[in-house]
Amino acid sequence: MHPDLSRLCIHTITTKPWDLEEALDRYSRAGVGGISVWQDAVAALGSRKAGDLIRQYPVDVVSYVRGGFFPAADPQARLNAIDRNKKMLDEAADIGAPILVLVCGADPGQPLELSRAQIRDGIEAVIPHAAANGVQLAIEPLHPMYADTRSAVNTLEQANDMAEYFNSEWVGIAVDVYHLWWDPHLEDQIARCGRNGNLSAFHICDWNTPTSDMLNDRGLMGEGCIPLHQISTWVERTGFSGYREVEIFSNRLWQIPQQEFLDKIISAYLKIW
Amino acid sequence: MHPDLSRLCIHTITTKPWDLEEALDRYSRAGVGGISVWQDAVAALGSRKAGDLIRQYPVDVVSYVRGGFFPAADPQARLNAIDRNKKMLDEAADIGAPILVLVCGADPGQPLELSRAQIRDGIEAVIPHAAANGVQLAIEPLHPMYADTRSAVNTLEQANDMAEYFNSEWVGIAVDVYHLWWDPHLEDQIARCGRNGNLSAFHICDWNTPTSDMLNDRGLMGEGCIPLHQISTWVERTGFSGYREVEIFSNRLWQIPQQEFLDKIISAYLKIW
Repeated sequence: MHPDLSRLCIHTITTKPWDLEEALDRYSRAGVGGISVWQDAVAALGSRKAGDLIRQYPVDVVSYVRGGFFPAADPQARLNAIDRNKKMLDEAADIGAPILVLVCGADPGQPLELSRAQIRDGIEAVIPHAAANGVQLAIEPLHPMYADTRSAVNTLEQANDMAEYFNSEWVGIAVDVYHLWWDPHLEDQIARCGRNGNLSAFHICDWNTPTSDMLNDRGLMGEGCIPLHQISTWVERTGFSGYREVEIFSNRLWQIPQQEFLDKIISAYLKIW
Repeated sequence: MHPDLSRLCIHTITTKPWDLEEALDRYSRAGVGGISVWQDAVAALGSRKAGDLIRQYPVDVVSYVRGGFFPAADPQARLNAIDRNKKMLDEAADIGAPILVLVCGADPGQPLELSRAQIRDGIEAVIPHAAANGVQLAIEPLHPMYADTRSAVNTLEQANDMAEYFNSEWVGIAVDVYHLWWDPHLEDQIARCGRNGNLSAFHICDWNTPTSDMLNDRGLMGEGCIPLHQISTWVERTGFSGYREVEIFSNRLWQIPQQEFLDKIISAYLKIW
């Protein structure tokens, strides 16, 4: 009997050396239930052909990654960001992704409060396009160490505030343990997120000690200090029954044979779930 | 007329290539008002002789750095940490420092909540020794990127909770812009910290974009994206009239001639204050 991987999803970036077709082939052979597709994995084919390819494999498309990056001091850059997000919503629809994950962005040349306001304005501007495509925008709060350039939304509380402000079925939240594990309010904010119907995605990996690179040294589940089982319990308690999405950026793990890495991911997953 | 550097303090670690005597000499020649002394700068002489040396220079000792590191899975290690902190309180008294800064610690092998409880227990165990020495313990909340090994106290709210729990004149808080600048609740939590009499120290530097090293790539004030003037205004509004302490760890800046670096620090300080 195969182990139950029906709720395991892998982000294509996790096995970056594989192109989309190889990822689809390897994940589906292994029985992995879902795939979250990064834009770079689609770029070579274009989103329509990528969609045709994806539909040949027995894996669910869980999300398209990643829109956002709304803030900029330059107004034209903000308009460009809105266009870019609309295009990504079209692409998400093409590949059958129900969610576009938002890394909201930040501009170190302006106050965080201004970046936060521009994020809100940017999301507001693309909601109608999200609705027209039937694709939900999922705000992903990012670790405070990325507050300078990647996201001015750094806690689940902020993401909850923003999602509740919109109160739209087209705006949800992606909870990623890497970004949020340290937060003393995490349990309460996860409960709030679920209670208000905003918990759309759950991303997993681990925090390495030491972390050698702020971007590309994420750990495989179980390697680090994140209490994955505990956080997962908080997520499940809200009624969440979606995918557990493995999103690992790792210079180290991208260097090993990727089938070996996939096997490790599955073993690590099965130890916890 | 000399510029007013009476509220400028420099941490010895900032000019790490200088030994204590050279730091005292250079800082006082430049008119810098205060010095915060790191344990490594005292180790060569011992704290009594270091105290004798310091008293020959017209600079105030602002704080001794750094105690803490209370959590550990091993009970004996926790007892050792308490002894180490008591010894540091003795040394702080020897050099005339009114404050011992606490980097509270964390053990990645145990839950953050447990580390937080052990921090509280550790501080409680050393308060009588702090009182006997007339040295205040200053809890320094650290950036969430250090939650694995350096501190399980990662927001000013947590530090406020802890200081208010003790409600002791021997427990205060060190506010460091590097650790806290991203926090959407920072203004409110600084006000709370001041209102409750717990704002004991104010540390300054900047956040570089990109940050090449999680520990030793802090920026000089003005180089990065931290709204120093704004945060300083929030601190001053509480009535705080203490030192602005420059605490920069930088592989890059430790490599330039340190007198040149000191001149840069003074210029950067005078642009803001």
